[in-house]
Amino acid sequence: MAMRLFLWGWAMKIIRSVKGMQSLADSIRSRGERIAFVPTMGYFHEGHLNLMRIGRTQGDCLVVSIYVNPTQFSPTEDLETYPRDFDRDRMLAETVGVDVIFLPNDQEMYPDGYQTFVEVAGVTKNLCGISRPQFFRGVTTVCTKLFQIVKPHVTVFGKKDFQQYVTIQRLVRDLNMDLEVIGMDTTRESDGLAMSSRNTYLNPEERRSALSLSRALVLAEDDKTSDPIRRPESIRHPGPENTENPFERKSFPRKKTLHTEINH
Amino acid sequence: MAMRLFLWGWAMKIIRSVKGMQSLADSIRSRGERIAFVPTMGYFHEGHLNLMRIGRTQGDCLVVSIYVNPTQFSPTEDLETYPRDFDRDRMLAETVGVDVIFLPNDQEMYPDGYQTFVEVAGVTKNLCGISRPQFFRGVTTVCTKLFQIVKPHVTVFGKKDFQQYVTIQRLVRDLNMDLEVIGMDTTRESDGLAMSSRNTYLNPEERRSALSLSRALVLAEDDKTSDPIRRPESIRHPGPENTENPFERKSFPRKKTLHTEINH
Repeated sequence: MAMRLFLWGWAMKIIRSVKGMQSLADSIRSRGERIAFVPTMGYFHEGHLNLMRIGRTQGDCLVVSIYVNPTQFSPTEDLETYPRDFDRDRMLAETVGVDVIFLPNDQEMYPDGYQTFVEVAGVTKNLCGISRPQFFRGVTTVCTKLFQIVKPHVTVFGKKDFQQYVTIQRLVRDLNMDLEVIGMDTTRESDGLAMSSRNTYLNPEERRSALSLSRALVLAEDDKTSDPIRRPESIRHPGPENTENPFERKSFPRKKTLHTEINH
Repeated sequence: MAMRLFLWGWAMKIIRSVKGMQSLADSIRSRGERIAFVPTMGYFHEGHLNLMRIGRTQGDCLVVSIYVNPTQFSPTEDLETYPRDFDRDRMLAETVGVDVIFLPNDQEMYPDGYQTFVEVAGVTKNLCGISRPQFFRGVTTVCTKLFQIVKPHVTVFGKKDFQQYVTIQRLVRDLNMDLEVIGMDTTRESDGLAMSSRNTYLNPEERRSALSLSRALVLAEDDKTSDPIRRPESIRHPGPENTENPFERKSFPRKKTLHTEINH
């Protein structure tokens, strides 16, 4: 990156207005260059940076948005307390070669009189759609807006939020957005926990019990196939279960199948 | 147009696939040329042609879509019987200098598994939104799709369907579509009736009573202002009312105000 800075006078841009971002996108496109886009809510961890590294390989210009989108939070959720640290995010984005950070505020994204929503009906109904009824509508609405603002050729989403990834694929296909959606495998801590900005909410006990998720995935996968699969040693051999863990439902029958469906 | 044909080898294109239309739009845009777009359901009358004439002045390439969009019809409405005559439409489009007709079929627009809808919540609730609850959602969904497919710089809508025009303005603004929406005044028959493809449904008696609409508009406008306004003589002086007309509610109090609201 230092070489890039030296040779091309490169400096990461920070754009806060919709018009400014659209105008930059137009000028990039008019040069025949490709725009890669990673939408985020900030507070970057290695998972975000991996999305950006993929994005970096997919376009001439890499745009990352940082926006904690209020329409995907229910009134009882953590909109106010969602972790934010822009100075740190800016520094991390520079280390992976981001060209533009799009950083709008609420008034820019949802001005007075705002009243339009985009809804993907089918794939959003199960799983998270049950416990978070507003979530996917908020995500598909803000992503539709961001895609119109950033005008990307390609966008990268993490498969950690797999239902969201499938929903975005469906959104893009159904609304004929001329945009490639790339999914990236989940980035995990060394003990198997999926990286997430919200992991900062966990106290040590919760942090330990959160591992039940990656363990459950491994067990499910072992049920499905006996082939060895790529995963950290620590997940493959999670060791003795913590029987004190109040978050693990050990009474859950080992062989019972959880039926759910994502038609995509 | 003959001269254009002679000089540039111009011939109107008919494109049926989404990919084909997007690819043409990309190549037009990459030459720095502007795309003007008039979405229609076909069966052209002078009102459509006036939209196209405006469009012709707004872009280097004029695209007209012809698509009878099923998602804006309720099951009891006239989807099956909506008038269609593509050969006549093609001929008329050529006379006003249309460059491209985008003519998709249902499978191209709503393939199996389709499940995404765009909804403008506020301005669609009153007036037609009451009697046609699915209508605006269908219109905003198909227009969002068409805007992603045709990639226009400017689009032209008739003010005859004024609530639709306001809804499209709201849609474009809320979703940050980088697109100018131009509204065009209603084109009327010489006796004042607004031109509409559905006027073909009217029998002679209904055709006569339909004039009550333009008459009511004139009366309302006369209530509002005594200034002379631009309108056909036949509307300004509609002559004696047809007292036999079963469609006119003559008991409707002349001075009563009809309160409705479109916040836009």
